[in-house]
Amino acid sequence: MKEFSSNKRRATSNQKAVVLLSGGLDSATLLYEAMDRGFKAHCLIFDYGQRHRKEIQIAKRLAKSVGCPFHVVKIALPWQGSSLLDSSMAIPQHKKIDPKKIPSTYVPARNIIFLSFAASYAEVVKAEAVFIGANALDYSGYPDCRPEFFRAYQTTIKAGTKTGAEGHAVHIEVPFLKKTKAQIIKVGTNLKVPYEKTWSCYQGGKTPCGTCDSCRLRAKGFEEAGIVDPLMAN
Amino acid sequence: MKEFSSNKRRATSNQKAVVLLSGGLDSATLLYEAMDRGFKAHCLIFDYGQRHRKEIQIAKRLAKSVGCPFHVVKIALPWQGSSLLDSSMAIPQHKKIDPKKIPSTYVPARNIIFLSFAASYAEVVKAEAVFIGANALDYSGYPDCRPEFFRAYQTTIKAGTKTGAEGHAVHIEVPFLKKTKAQIIKVGTNLKVPYEKTWSCYQGGKTPCGTCDSCRLRAKGFEEAGIVDPLMAN
Repeated sequence: MKEFSSNKRRATSNQKAVVLLSGGLDSATLLYEAMDRGFKAHCLIFDYGQRHRKEIQIAKRLAKSVGCPFHVVKIALPWQGSSLLDSSMAIPQHKKIDPKKIPSTYVPARNIIFLSFAASYAEVVKAEAVFIGANALDYSGYPDCRPEFFRAYQTTIKAGTKTGAEGHAVHIEVPFLKKTKAQIIKVGTNLKVPYEKTWSCYQGGKTPCGTCDSCRLRAKGFEEAGIVDPLMAN
Repeated sequence: MKEFSSNKRRATSNQKAVVLLSGGLDSATLLYEAMDRGFKAHCLIFDYGQRHRKEIQIAKRLAKSVGCPFHVVKIALPWQGSSLLDSSMAIPQHKKIDPKKIPSTYVPARNIIFLSFAASYAEVVKAEAVFIGANALDYSGYPDCRPEFFRAYQTTIKAGTKTGAEGHAVHIEVPFLKKTKAQIIKVGTNLKVPYEKTWSCYQGGKTPCGTCDSCRLRAKGFEEAGIVDPLMAN
């Protein structure tokens, strides 16, 4: 079975792609990658009750800045189960993370839910592809970021959608699946992604906290890429 | 690969099941079937902007009447694409339906979305199974009711959830997949499902319209089962 990371689908004649946009650096790079491949991007932004609500505004601003149509999908999950949603749970600090365990920031079935809306939206706008920014760092911890997950989802979309039944299912593109944060930052820097307009911190304060898992991974990525993070330089 | 319809999982020692409940006769029968198999049912009811809003109230009443906890998940799909959502589209009448075409009442990726929430909820309440009421009549028209769709989704849940990664993924149960409406009604009648409390009509008026696809299939089902529909007898 083909690897998702090496699958570099390009648009022919103004094809559309649904891009899952969060406002973080991976998804910002993803949006620029999809556009660079010639797709007309349609962004999906999720408001799922995340504590770091700032990312929703950041994502909207990003989509507007490149002139892409976007939808904010509001998902009111009536249950908790993740420190990203539940304010009574602590967001883990980087030094306390056990790489062998699924972190508490895991939101049950989050990518299964996100991709289900992407599959629906893609059918309605007749998109050729869905871009999702999962990467190697994620899939060491989150089950719904593993290559086998995306392969299974592709089969589900082929079987369970109208376009799939008609023989032209939307393609799930995970271009950064095998890329480290540093590699993604290098790709994005080449594509002139405005990283100063992105947001990674889980805490969602006025400035990045610098200590949460997401802040630490971002800092490490820029350091390894040998690039100064413009968000921190401001 | 095993068939979903013949997969009759029973609960051991107070296991939980998430039951997708719509207020229609299939899902009401499904709830009673899950309870009959010994599961403690947790119902998920979807408010996805359907025109037949009455079914949401009916579903809540049904869950309360058997003392099951339930959640109403509100999904604001910002796009249309189905006559069940879009009031500018006509709901097809039974005589006009072409059995070879996917009907306009198809909601893009609806079951992909519903099952994604069920997978999330199941992880949080630690459910053993998810029950969904798709059946043979549905899968002649809707791609997301076909056996291959549920098989693919099961693989997706195994790969993409924490419980799946830990080797005990929730099981998707589709007990009526190969059953006709008449057979479902016979099962439910044996289980004493209060069909007078269920609702099938797509139009959502005070009384069933009697002419929409859903009303006609219900009437045909009761007729073939040789049972009087208590909803129509009132």
